[in-house]
Amino acid sequence: MAEHTTLSEDHPIYADELLGLSPELVAKVAVALEAEHRFEARIQVEPLRPPECADLLQLLRPELRHRLIEYMRPDFDPEILPELEEDIRDEIAEQLGTTSIAHAIARLESDDALELIETLDEQKRHDILQKIPAQLRNIVEEGLAFPEDSAGRLMERDFVAVPTFWTVGETIDFLREADDLPADFYDIFVVDPRHRAIGMVALSHVLRSKRPVKIADIMEAEIVTVPAMMDQEEVAYLFSQQDLVSAPVVDDAERLIGMVTVDDVLDVIQEEAEEDIMRLGGVSGDDLYSAALETGRSRSSWLFINLLTAIVASIVIGLFQGTIEQIVILAVLMPIVASMGGNAGTQTMTVAVRALATKELTASNALRVLGKEALVGVYNGVLFALLVGCVAWFWADSWKIGGVMAVAMIVTLVLAALSGMAIPLVLARRGIDPAIASSVILTTITDVVAFSAFLGLAAWLLL
Amino acid sequence: MAEHTTLSEDHPIYADELLGLSPELVAKVAVALEAEHRFEARIQVEPLRPPECADLLQLLRPELRHRLIEYMRPDFDPEILPELEEDIRDEIAEQLGTTSIAHAIARLESDDALELIETLDEQKRHDILQKIPAQLRNIVEEGLAFPEDSAGRLMERDFVAVPTFWTVGETIDFLREADDLPADFYDIFVVDPRHRAIGMVALSHVLRSKRPVKIADIMEAEIVTVPAMMDQEEVAYLFSQQDLVSAPVVDDAERLIGMVTVDDVLDVIQEEAEEDIMRLGGVSGDDLYSAALETGRSRSSWLFINLLTAIVASIVIGLFQGTIEQIVILAVLMPIVASMGGNAGTQTMTVAVRALATKELTASNALRVLGKEALVGVYNGVLFALLVGCVAWFWADSWKIGGVMAVAMIVTLVLAALSGMAIPLVLARRGIDPAIASSVILTTITDVVAFSAFLGLAAWLLL
Repeated sequence: MAEHTTLSEDHPIYADELLGLSPELVAKVAVALEAEHRFEARIQVEPLRPPECADLLQLLRPELRHRLIEYMRPDFDPEILPELEEDIRDEIAEQLGTTSIAHAIARLESDDALELIETLDEQKRHDILQKIPAQLRNIVEEGLAFPEDSAGRLMERDFVAVPTFWTVGETIDFLREADDLPADFYDIFVVDPRHRAIGMVALSHVLRSKRPVKIADIMEAEIVTVPAMMDQEEVAYLFSQQDLVSAPVVDDAERLIGMVTVDDVLDVIQEEAEEDIMRLGGVSGDDLYSAALETGRSRSSWLFINLLTAIVASIVIGLFQGTIEQIVILAVLMPIVASMGGNAGTQTMTVAVRALATKELTASNALRVLGKEALVGVYNGVLFALLVGCVAWFWADSWKIGGVMAVAMIVTLVLAALSGMAIPLVLARRGIDPAIASSVILTTITDVVAFSAFLGLAAWLLL
Repeated sequence: MAEHTTLSEDHPIYADELLGLSPELVAKVAVALEAEHRFEARIQVEPLRPPECADLLQLLRPELRHRLIEYMRPDFDPEILPELEEDIRDEIAEQLGTTSIAHAIARLESDDALELIETLDEQKRHDILQKIPAQLRNIVEEGLAFPEDSAGRLMERDFVAVPTFWTVGETIDFLREADDLPADFYDIFVVDPRHRAIGMVALSHVLRSKRPVKIADIMEAEIVTVPAMMDQEEVAYLFSQQDLVSAPVVDDAERLIGMVTVDDVLDVIQEEAEEDIMRLGGVSGDDLYSAALETGRSRSSWLFINLLTAIVASIVIGLFQGTIEQIVILAVLMPIVASMGGNAGTQTMTVAVRALATKELTASNALRVLGKEALVGVYNGVLFALLVGCVAWFWADSWKIGGVMAVAMIVTLVLAALSGMAIPLVLARRGIDPAIASSVILTTITDVVAFSAFLGLAAWLLL
């Protein structure tokens, strides 16, 4: 089998090209823009689909991006907007102005329109709402009434629902006549006379059934309904646990009011994973496209918290200044203990934060997992105590210092493993996102434990 | 609007209950198992769906899990197996034995069967392949011939394909008669006489078109085909960029050989995000369910690498042992510089690793982003130089030490920002996963820079 498939010339779209724009194309567009060749630039951009256009815009320097937007303004495709990262979207929305944006939004699906409008600031949101058709405005305002990140915000307001007593034939005839169907749908919902969702049928099941068959006979009655107030993270969990492609959204009275589709869920899953990764790394969000000043400011708040915890660790070291004065080698060796503690703790914390996010870590198994982590701490504690003890013994030429280091290592690694598991659990129980605060608390604890165990033991045993 | 929807009694399934098992149910099952009440335990487990059963099994203590599997053995639902985490799945597969597993696998869809078999070890895989029906064995062996994590492994071998000249009516009649259709499908693929994929039609478009309409007239011709050798990560990127629910998989000659559906892609996206999170945290994978000894062993390799880098940092400190001997306060203050450098570098690195994974960071913008990070480093460097300089000045009661610390902080933060961006870029270009190796290299560099800048400047200016 060949290393990679070669696609023939007449093939509609080369899958490989879709995986990111070719650097050559980006370079060509950039050259055309530099030279202010409006026509040449537009020719290059013309065949691109909205997601690729969005990628291209994000890759260009701000000045060139600004110029390209001006060139594209006459027939700017609104589908590009929802594909952009927030910073770039704000910038382009600013440049296009509310009138152009309102025109663009009027051409989007209701859930895309809502997604776009909710990212704008209060003033711009208000201006644009005045300028879009009344019907769409009502839908968007209804959507904005739901809390951020709820199923109500995520849902598409168009869906297909039929009564139980219809046949497959009647359903097909209805679909052929209807003119306000959603652009894409994968299931037909079944409602009772009070418009409550009581079942659903996959389109493939409708298609493979004969016309006289009753919808009631082929519908799945054990369905998952999504309350409009449900958090989008829980919606995503439902979709992936139950392998859904669409799900009915219901209001307080269980009436069917919308539909969530898997493409929106895909976005949510990526957003949530990204959020966890960023928070664990001490960044408030993806700031790749933010200006340097803004990025610096937002990151400095985290660094400031880190500074405070580093000062706490230094205060602990300060308590043993006299000890270090007498045995300087302690200052050389102490960062090893702290570094190992921080790393071992981070390993456990990472597993805990992820397991909490995927609901694998619960009250039912927390104690057992904590016990296991203690054992892991002892295992690695003893292993590295031996290793590090020997290193310190030879380095400092004193078996006593080696012994002190070994004991400090065991204490630190066991406490690091326990804190790495316990901190996220406690934070989660108190309703604080464990991804955001765990690592600061953790490294403060591991540093304090490492320095006080190592220097404290040294002061006690060696002086 | 109420805080949370209340679902009435006659509602088929309570959405909230699907979000993780209730702790009460887990406790009830555990009590029944403790007391060896086979009947009671089975009554509790009976109504659960496979994903919930999998969750329950994962939450139980190993002995109780073992007992429950024995109770469930007579009618063990094979759909539970693909839902389990790998460690638990191996354990249960071991307990059930190859004959039971082979029976179970024979009842799965071909892609689920393949997914399950590929996780087993060589010997068990061989035994089971001998015991499943020849037809399924052929399919599984064909699948195993594709590289791990390729579209060929991911794809479902059943799909629906029709020739261009068919009408909607003929297509519907075919679907009503066919008896080997996939359980779920969302698009119909269109093939030319050489069985190459040249278009696709969403089921909703088939349903809303009249019987005499030609498939060629409603099909989407600009389709994305997935080469069987494509990496699953790239497949996931395609699905999310193009909002697909299914896509045709083609061989070297572009012949249609399978179909990837969005539910598999959802799993891939979660796996890949999890992998990145775990690797950034220095863990080889989700080891929540591994035994303590195994977990300890796998984590120790990472700690060992960390030990080596910590020793490098200590060697740097050792070079300035004489300086510390004369000004002990330096030992107290030096961890602050190192900690700030490590944190600032991690912030940048997190953004870089994520942007590389989502293909937002490319050759086209790497240099510009690097320049921006340098500016961010200068901004925060100056800010924290002032802060930390004052802290050190008062603490050490010496404006000279404060000055040295301030300069060291600027140098460290600028180099941390540059390395945080450059290391993942270089690793990615060399084909090494930036998530796995970046943080070790980064903290080594930030530690070395921090300690040598701070202690070196002190030795030069203060002695």
